[in-house]
Formats: sequence, C-alpha cells, structure tokens
Amino acid sequence: MAEFNIPSLDNLINQLSKLPGIGRKTAQRLAIFILKSPLDYAESLTGAIVDIKQNTRMCQRCFNIAEGDLCRVCADAHRDTGMICVVEDVVDVLAIESAHEYQGVYHVLGGVISPLAGVGVGDLRIRELLERVKQGGVREVLLALNLSTEGEATMIYLSQLLANQNVEVTRIAHGIPMGSHLEFVDQTTISRAIQGRRKI
Amino acid sequence: MAEFNIPSLDNLINQLSKLPGIGRKTAQRLAIFILKSPLDYAESLTGAIVDIKQNTRMCQRCFNIAEGDLCRVCADAHRDTGMICVVEDVVDVLAIESAHEYQGVYHVLGGVISPLAGVGVGDLRIRELLERVKQGGVREVLLALNLSTEGEATMIYLSQLLANQNVEVTRIAHGIPMGSHLEFVDQTTISRAIQGRRKI
Repeated sequence: MAEFNIPSLDNLINQLSKLPGIGRKTAQRLAIFILKSPLDYAESLTGAIVDIKQNTRMCQRCFNIAEGDLCRVCADAHRDTGMICVVEDVVDVLAIESAHEYQGVYHVLGGVISPLAGVGVGDLRIRELLERVKQGGVREVLLALNLSTEGEATMIYLSQLLANQNVEVTRIAHGIPMGSHLEFVDQTTISRAIQGRRKI
Repeated sequence: MAEFNIPSLDNLINQLSKLPGIGRKTAQRLAIFILKSPLDYAESLTGAIVDIKQNTRMCQRCFNIAEGDLCRVCADAHRDTGMICVVEDVVDVLAIESAHEYQGVYHVLGGVISPLAGVGVGDLRIRELLERVKQGGVREVLLALNLSTEGEATMIYLSQLLANQNVEVTRIAHGIPMGSHLEFVDQTTISRAIQGRRKI
C-alpha cells in the first residue's frame, strides 16, 4: 500500500487504521476527509475524543459506562434493583436498553471465561457480582451472555456459583429471531428453539 | 438507533458518524473502542488530527498536499516539469504515484465542471493551470480526470482552452474501466493507462 510520504498525513492514516474494522484504504479516505474538512470539524472531533476520555468512567456498581459515580441505569430510582441482568460488555447494555423491555439493573462482566484467551475467573467482575447478590435484595439474576462455547461455560459457572445464594438464576431465551425464516437459521439455534418450546 | 444517553459518548458517536462511509453502528463501535483504549491511543489520535490540520497546506504550484510551500513532487528536482498531469483530487496524485510510471508533475483541479453540482470553471484551478502553461517550459499536459460525464466534459473544455498554447494535450488511455474512480484502480491498470495515453 503506497503512502503519501507526508509525515503528518501518514501518521494520521496509521492512527486511524488502528480502529477496529478500518483498513488502510478506509483510513486513507478518512484522513483525506479530515485534512480537507473545516478546522471546526477537526476541533469538534478531537474535543469529543478528549472529552470521552476525561468524563467517562465505569459505574461503581455495575461497570456500565458512566459519567458520574453511577451509570444512568443505576442512578435511575425507577429501575428494579431486585433483578440483575449479567452481560459481557457495555454494548450489550445498549442492545437490551434499546428493546425497552427490561426494567432491572445490569452487571457488566467484562468478558467471558476463556482459558484459550487467558481470561480466567479473576479477570472478570464475578466477585463483584457475588458481593452484590450477597448484600441482599436481589430476587433474580438474568444471564444474557452471548451463545459462544465460552459464554455457555461462563453461564454454567455463574449458575453454580449463585446456586446457594437464594436467588433465581435465569437465562434469556434463545430461538428463532423475529423475521427469520427457518431455512436460513443455523442448526444450533433450531435445537435451542425446540428445547425451549412453550405450550400455547 | 438507540443512543447511550451519555452526553460525551453520544457526542463522539455524532462526530465520528460525520466521517465518510461511517454509519451510526460503525461510529458506535469506534467510539466504544476509543473509550476502552489506553489514554495513549486517544492522545496519539487527537495529536495526529491536530498535527495534520496545523502542518499541511496546499502546494503553491500544483495544489497537492504539502507540508512546506511546495509538495514533495514539485520540490523534487528530478521530476520532469515539462509534463503536467491534471487530476481532480489529491487522492488521484497518490494513485498515480503508487504506479511508479509517471515522472512529470501534477496539477490538482479540485474537481470537475459540474453545472448540476454548481461547480463552474471559476471554482476549479483552471486559471492557475493556464498560467503555468503560459509561463512556458511545458511540453505536454496529460489529462487524467475520472471518466464521468463531467470529467469528460472538463477534459474537452481543457483541451480546447489549451489548443493554442503550443502544448501537446493528451489523456490517459481507456484502460481505466468506465465508472471506476482512479483512487480505487489497481497500479498495473494505472501504468497501462499512462503508457497508452493518446493525443486529443
């Protein structure tokens, strides 16, 4: 891939191509766009980056993104603190929030147990989850990890860990997504959908 | 599209989604990546953006990107100043340079004549091109605009404008597939197109 041989431009292309899903060609296009755009935009963009690094932190309770000590969900007095939904990542909180179905609070694990990737129980916020449950007032822990082998293993581990804590441990239903046709759904999902069938 | 309702995060997503080809979902992923990345990376990225806005300008001669008064090509004493390649945009200079075929200098028009888009002759650097040719020492003007209707019309306009200026006006060969933009064409095709240039 040829470069412009202009140090400041090549440097920006390098930095942009470190972003996920941004290849050299895209990074080049973005860099040229920034180069040509009014100074206002460059200032807004750098300002926004500085701002997010300075003003966001992790929620002290659930490890979601927060601007203060608590995230928007934990700070909301109307949320049901008796129900904790356990997710891998902050983006999963957004996905669930966007469905406007869930009224409880969250706990962001920060990943799943993955011996191959060197992620052990101690690397996740499992101890913090257990402490929240032990403090009492929690009726139900809803496990909403992704359906990878590691996600499954982590859900099994968590359900065993919470077994004698006097909480109900549930998991979100897996089945055929809305709007999908059976013929295009993978076999594992079909198996899950059949296992999880309900009486009508 | 749901938002995080975290002002600094939503602001960064907004700024990132102004970049070309970056939709809300991608902007969200990039913003989360920046949020989670070490402070070092955020500083390198903002530094690179500030740097490019402060340190780059347009070459005073050919309007390519430059860090000093002249761009790298114009400042190179080994380039053939008797041959000027006319392109629409700075990315086209990179595309042609990467083919290592062309030894002359450039002239970046800044677009093509497009009445529909409100781009007239006065909006492009056509007068500056004519002045360069009139100053003498130019044997050949190679037109390498993209093969759009507007590009074609602009090439016809330029060839008529330069007709009595005692320079040979050529255009790169139709090796470039119709509808493609120079920026995305492979280097070999660009080489062929330069070798096969024809007098018009």
